Amino acid sequence: VRTPTAVYDLTVDVYQQVGSDAAICDAARVSTLGAGRKDVDEDADAKLVGYLMANRHGSPFEHGSITFRCHAPWFCWWDHVRHRIGISYNIESSRYRELEPVFYLPCVARTQRGKPGHYVMDAGTDEQTVALQNALVESYRTAWMSYQQALAAGVSREMAMIALPMGLMVTGYTTFNPRSLMNFLSLRRSEHARAEMAQWADQYAAAFDRHWPATAAAFEANGRIAP
Amino acid sequence: VRTPTAVYDLTVDVYQQVGSDAAICDAARVSTLGAGRKDVDEDADAKLVGYLMANRHGSPFEHGSITFRCHAPWFCWWDHVRHRIGISYNIESSRYRELEPVFYLPCVARTQRGKPGHYVMDAGTDEQTVALQNALVESYRTAWMSYQQALAAGVSREMAMIALPMGLMVTGYTTFNPRSLMNFLSLRRSEHARAEMAQWADQYAAAFDRHWPATAAAFEANGRIAP
Amino acid sequence: VRTPTAVYDLTVDVYQQVGSDAAICDAARVSTLGAGRKDVDEDADAKLVGYLMANRHGSPFEHGSITFRCHAPWFCWWDHVRHRIGISYNIESSRYRELEPVFYLPCVARTQRGKPGHYVMDAGTDEQTVALQNALVESYRTAWMSYQQALAAGVSREMAMIALPMGLMVTGYTTFNPRSLMNFLSLRRSEHARAEMAQWADQYAAAFDRHWPATAAAFEANGRIAP
Amino acid sequence: VRTPTAVYDLTVDVYQQVGSDAAICDAARVSTLGAGRKDVDEDADAKLVGYLMANRHGSPFEHGSITFRCHAPWFCWWDHVRHRIGISYNIESSRYRELEPVFYLPCVARTQRGKPGHYVMDAGTDEQTVALQNALVESYRTAWMSYQQALAAGVSREMAMIALPMGLMVTGYTTFNPRSLMNFLSLRRSEHARAEMAQWADQYAAAFDRHWPATAAAFEANGRIAP
Repeated sequence: VRTPTAVYDLTVDVYQQVGSDAAICDAARVSTLGAGRKDVDEDADAKLVGYLMANRHGSPFEHGSITFRCHAPWFCWWDHVRHRIGISYNIESSRYRELEPVFYLPCVARTQRGKPGHYVMDAGTDEQTVALQNALVESYRTAWMSYQQALAAGVSREMAMIALPMGLMVTGYTTFNPRSLMNFLSLRRSEHARAEMAQWADQYAAAFDRHWPATAAAFEANGRIAP
Repeated sequence: VRTPTAVYDLTVDVYQQVGSDAAICDAARVSTLGAGRKDVDEDADAKLVGYLMANRHGSPFEHGSITFRCHAPWFCWWDHVRHRIGISYNIESSRYRELEPVFYLPCVARTQRGKPGHYVMDAGTDEQTVALQNALVESYRTAWMSYQQALAAGVSREMAMIALPMGLMVTGYTTFNPRSLMNFLSLRRSEHARAEMAQWADQYAAAFDRHWPATAAAFEANGRIAP
Repeated sequence: VRTPTAVYDLTVDVYQQVGSDAAICDAARVSTLGAGRKDVDEDADAKLVGYLMANRHGSPFEHGSITFRCHAPWFCWWDHVRHRIGISYNIESSRYRELEPVFYLPCVARTQRGKPGHYVMDAGTDEQTVALQNALVESYRTAWMSYQQALAAGVSREMAMIALPMGLMVTGYTTFNPRSLMNFLSLRRSEHARAEMAQWADQYAAAFDRHWPATAAAFEANGRIAP
Repeated sequence: VRTPTAVYDLTVDVYQQVGSDAAICDAARVSTLGAGRKDVDEDADAKLVGYLMANRHGSPFEHGSITFRCHAPWFCWWDHVRHRIGISYNIESSRYRELEPVFYLPCVARTQRGKPGHYVMDAGTDEQTVALQNALVESYRTAWMSYQQALAAGVSREMAMIALPMGLMVTGYTTFNPRSLMNFLSLRRSEHARAEMAQWADQYAAAFDRHWPATAAAFEANGRIAP
């Protein structure tokens, strides 16, 4: 029998990727070149990408694709799947398999002040972190026991899972194009976002930087407003 | 201090609606009439709708809108939000408010047999139902206590909620057009769907029948294959 | 035999509509109220809508729907259908019917200066307007004759139409939600947009003002940046 | 001064691509494997893909991307851009550049019989082909002259283009995922589709076969019904 274990972080790996700053520029230049082509260099591409970003010409940023394999708690997936446009998902199922007892434990509790939409989240005290971790562990243990009891009684997995908490870790694939990725980053890589979502977004952003450096730089220079 | 309470059903209310079989037909007839118009009757509309459905001309079914106000457990919302096209959502937030201790309790446990994709779910014995309900109630009680403890320690709501289980009931708005609603019904109003999702879909379907009777009839006649 | 006729304007009529500022606010408030409800007044709604707009909380603006019946030239439809998200279309078909010889004639020619992305369009001289109108009429007449000749020879409508020019007027239905309508307006109700598209957007905007006055006002106050 | 030239075919090139049958299977298997992995072979992949296709589990088919560079007449693009979901476009602009006088000429005229939705298109006689080609060439010549006259008078490109016919060839980029590509093929690679669209779809399908052979085979075996 497996006992619940805790993880303190989300994991994100790039599974596959295609596209580049140059591909975005090729798509954009079809507007002005039509069937023709022109030799260009990286500087010209960076300049064009900056222009497209600043003037919110978004469509060229859709030609490209990046797929991630992610391990994250349900409450983060819950936030993630609210992004609907230009994003694809496949996530571990609680119907098709017995889930693993791996749960998310935050390293540091956060407190909340201010009004809706203007919340400020501060790092909590050590006491608060301990209180949160204890509360979560208690919930995780009981929930896992309930899950196992229901399964042991012969109840279907899709019903036993109702007992499980939002902190459960599951694995999934996400696919974006550069434009939909920027939409995600504009909302989630922010001080207003839930810290765990910002952590996820930071890991996406690192891959974005690596594969589309000029686009990522222009996005930052433009205040992370998606085109 | 509120104590956890149980509900046994999902609730669905129509919040607002626009459109009709006639509007779908008007949109379809622009193909052949252009700027012209023709007097038509309900019989002609029903015939046209049947033709569009059978031949998978889907676009006319997008002109119309229905908004529902729903009360359902998180695990159902989790399934629901995987539908991305032509659907809009606003759901109760665990960040902006303290949640209510209302949880879903299934009246009858189900068992599961067969292979992935061909599962058969049978009604469980009374013993199995009792085992499931006890397991869920135990999980709910502990989770709610954990949630309250974390809040009492001054931890943010968005972190305390991590303790809460998939059975928690939340309220939300969903908006569909007839086409996206049929997509939902084709997948969820089925013996292969999770029973709670089928229950949700049945309630949507009742409203669909009422507001688009010819379309709903043609959809049924066509084996619930969305156009 | 019909002879080609000219029109100088696009026509837009509201076919059906549902939703209001209040409905947007109800959807937004589910975040903080959950299953509860609160009595609110128009002032509170206007304030909430302004907050949602400024902070780019876009999802509440998706609950509502407006369908237009439009008469516009192909080159405008061509620009219009590039809007893909939250928009539905049914447009007169050149396959299913013989088209009408009604063509768009601009009242005033425009000239173009500046660089791509920073074009300035000035009103042309009377000579330029006459030159454009004569050129268009010449093209329309020949194209219509070609269309009729091909049909007379027994060629299919879908092939005869290949001769027809972008200035041909066709009828269609478009359906938006308030959010997708704002996306359209943010790009097309602009000095950078093609004047005919701005004209179309102005007509949409008038209906938007009428049915969602607080939302429309907040959108203007926010620089026409869609949330 | 360039004189109009004719082309008889659409051109489609693969610009970039990522993904494979194996990637689709990896995404699908996360449902049942979660964080785990299993060694699999091509036979197991082909079997899984067949199962997903037959049971309309569509989401795994979204992880992958293919970008095409296409040269096609406006009337085909007009049909193409009606596909909105999971497809991205950048197309040569008539505003940003002076267009090229390259026009589509069909090799064989088609005739049309039967009722809407059940049209049968037969190859026309030589006389009909000649009649169509002459009619088109006449329209193309006049339209091109009108376009040049308007430009010569100093009128903006975006107004001069109103004279140009649907047969004009333009270049563009299209990006699909395997699922959206199958949606396109299910509607356009069909005896009911316009022959030129079927030609386009055939060229897409050849690339689909090459890069996702098991998926393409399962799609065919399933009657070209997109999952």
